[in-house]
Amino acid sequence: MALIVQKFGGSSVADAEKVKNVASRVVETANEGNQVVVVVSAQGDTTDDLIEKAQEINPNASKREMDMLLSSGEQISIALLAMAIEAQKYPVISLTGWQAGFKTNSAAGNARISKIDVERIQSELDKHKIVIVAGFQGLDKYDNITTLGRGGSDTSAVALAAALRANKCEIYTDVDGVYTTDPRIVPDAVKLEEITYDEMLELASLGANVLHNRSVEMAKKYNVQLEVKSSFKKVPGTVVKEVTNVEKMLIRGVARDNDVARIAIIGLEDTPGIAFKVFSALAKENINVDMILQSIGHGGKKDIVFTVTKSNLEKALSVIAALKETVPYEEVNHKDDLSKISIVGAGMVNNPGVAASMFEALFDASINIHMIATSELKVSVLININNAERAVQVIHDKFTK
Amino acid sequence: MALIVQKFGGSSVADAEKVKNVASRVVETANEGNQVVVVVSAQGDTTDDLIEKAQEINPNASKREMDMLLSSGEQISIALLAMAIEAQKYPVISLTGWQAGFKTNSAAGNARISKIDVERIQSELDKHKIVIVAGFQGLDKYDNITTLGRGGSDTSAVALAAALRANKCEIYTDVDGVYTTDPRIVPDAVKLEEITYDEMLELASLGANVLHNRSVEMAKKYNVQLEVKSSFKKVPGTVVKEVTNVEKMLIRGVARDNDVARIAIIGLEDTPGIAFKVFSALAKENINVDMILQSIGHGGKKDIVFTVTKSNLEKALSVIAALKETVPYEEVNHKDDLSKISIVGAGMVNNPGVAASMFEALFDASINIHMIATSELKVSVLININNAERAVQVIHDKFTK
Repeated sequence: MALIVQKFGGSSVADAEKVKNVASRVVETANEGNQVVVVVSAQGDTTDDLIEKAQEINPNASKREMDMLLSSGEQISIALLAMAIEAQKYPVISLTGWQAGFKTNSAAGNARISKIDVERIQSELDKHKIVIVAGFQGLDKYDNITTLGRGGSDTSAVALAAALRANKCEIYTDVDGVYTTDPRIVPDAVKLEEITYDEMLELASLGANVLHNRSVEMAKKYNVQLEVKSSFKKVPGTVVKEVTNVEKMLIRGVARDNDVARIAIIGLEDTPGIAFKVFSALAKENINVDMILQSIGHGGKKDIVFTVTKSNLEKALSVIAALKETVPYEEVNHKDDLSKISIVGAGMVNNPGVAASMFEALFDASINIHMIATSELKVSVLININNAERAVQVIHDKFTK
Repeated sequence: MALIVQKFGGSSVADAEKVKNVASRVVETANEGNQVVVVVSAQGDTTDDLIEKAQEINPNASKREMDMLLSSGEQISIALLAMAIEAQKYPVISLTGWQAGFKTNSAAGNARISKIDVERIQSELDKHKIVIVAGFQGLDKYDNITTLGRGGSDTSAVALAAALRANKCEIYTDVDGVYTTDPRIVPDAVKLEEITYDEMLELASLGANVLHNRSVEMAKKYNVQLEVKSSFKKVPGTVVKEVTNVEKMLIRGVARDNDVARIAIIGLEDTPGIAFKVFSALAKENINVDMILQSIGHGGKKDIVFTVTKSNLEKALSVIAALKETVPYEEVNHKDDLSKISIVGAGMVNNPGVAASMFEALFDASINIHMIATSELKVSVLININNAERAVQVIHDKFTK
């Protein structure tokens, strides 16, 4: 008998039919002789509707009251899913975040799980019940309801799987696994059977919206075996775990990220400490910098080029403008019609030809590269956004055909 | 400084504008130097919408899961009201039933409050906050969310006023007080300044839908001063308390109840124990009997006539049919196009002319009386339903003009 944690997102329980469908999947797993704990998000647009209600009344509502409001969304979906399972004659009980023992810090709206007291869940499992748990929510030490912020239900599910020492954690979503690239762009994208936590983290941060980073990091930390599966199709998904089988494929995926802007500071003094001053000033304003390129100094001058998200572009430019007094430079320019294309794969560190193959594919397609960044797990290039879809296609072809 | 509990029903917080309006009323009370605890119901049709969602998924859902579902409704309204008060810059906090310390028995869907641990509310009041509490809900000893059944939010408010030893409990509703009769039928119905608990109980059970009986009984038990007021109009309401000022008016109100059916058992044996056998058989099936009339025996035979609610008519008839073996009778007939008209007033016990005046008003209007029942506080008559509105009008005229 295995203990399995299953997580269903909001689109999987959006209406009565879908709730019944999820109930069938859950009951099937239980009937195979497993103990099942299910983590559910709020139905479809519920959270957005509640946010709209709040906006109408007070656009500056406190996060504490927003958490009180939003946590009702999962309370509705756990009750409905429990009812659907009751209709299939399987013993079941729904539990809110606090009933399930989720303790968090007091950072309303973006709380971190501090621990999970699993006694209640364990005692309901001992009574041979399926246990339905509200994702995304917990309770702080003052007995206030908190929510976990973006990707919260994934995190709830992984944390619960870790606390219960579950055999695996299945994340059901509207895609049926992790693909080598976005199947909407490249129709012959291939679904991966397995992927490592690190590869998944690189893919997630590169814009493959399957699993939230926080949940993958937690799964890695507690060695929880994850599986990404489809809520609707009954096909094997993608397993995320520490070490995967060797596969012939060098790369795991091609990812695209359009939320990128490039800033170039031209004509800085070529003296030590310049890069430190620039990036510590940006860090102080909580601006995350992604790719960085520093030119080799010539004539006592050098350039620094880096990327930020589009939402941080204005703030970054004003930080740099304010810096001119202490860090003199000639000029600043920026560009935001860009896309970052990345290939990810644990195998590439031992295969120096991988990056070259990527560049070759782009050259053959006459796509110009603005910047390059590499790590042990990935190679990223910055290109014009109007070339992005074609770039994903030709790189994917290069590695899979 | 007084401590005031205010209760607002679902129609009072049905949309954003109404929530803001309630917030203003509450803040005003606080700005007058009072401590304020507010009990709120779910918004407008929320509860009905949630019930519909459940019906779609499982018409036979357990009461435990229905309570989990329905309690989300008040959680939404307390958060929204708290946000509206935040917008008016007054310190405020919302609390669910369990956060507010409401402990109940485990009768899901119709739980009874066993006690209220007021520490959390008290500590928030000590921080000079307005405290918003979700009505209608509590927590059983196994940490399951329960709901209190019909009229639950009124009961929450009165219980909380008792537990906090509040100076008064104001029930805000869409009428502005308790009237001598339904103002929609009799335009010159008069609003009462004061009424006793017992009179209110008689009026409530007779179909004047202002306060739920359970809450009035609790107010009487703990001597909580109630005031029924309008959420929308700023006018004095009706105060419900133990002893009221002597008023010249003999009766407090004329009430009408159309949910009544009459059953007549004809030709019973005129021996001791017959009535006991009939009514204990009905009680065993949880059928409440209201008016009872037993004819004087003649020729060894007698008749028993009584009323039940229309929903219990079929069940009552089958109980009596099953009884024929042990309690022989000649025949049974029934009638359900009836209305019960009642006059209520603590003063009538000392005024034997009151009942006579009521009968005279009906006689003058040529309205036939089928049955009569009297108590210390009221006189009720059973008449044909098509005479009901006219009867209320002529009786009201008789006593107020």
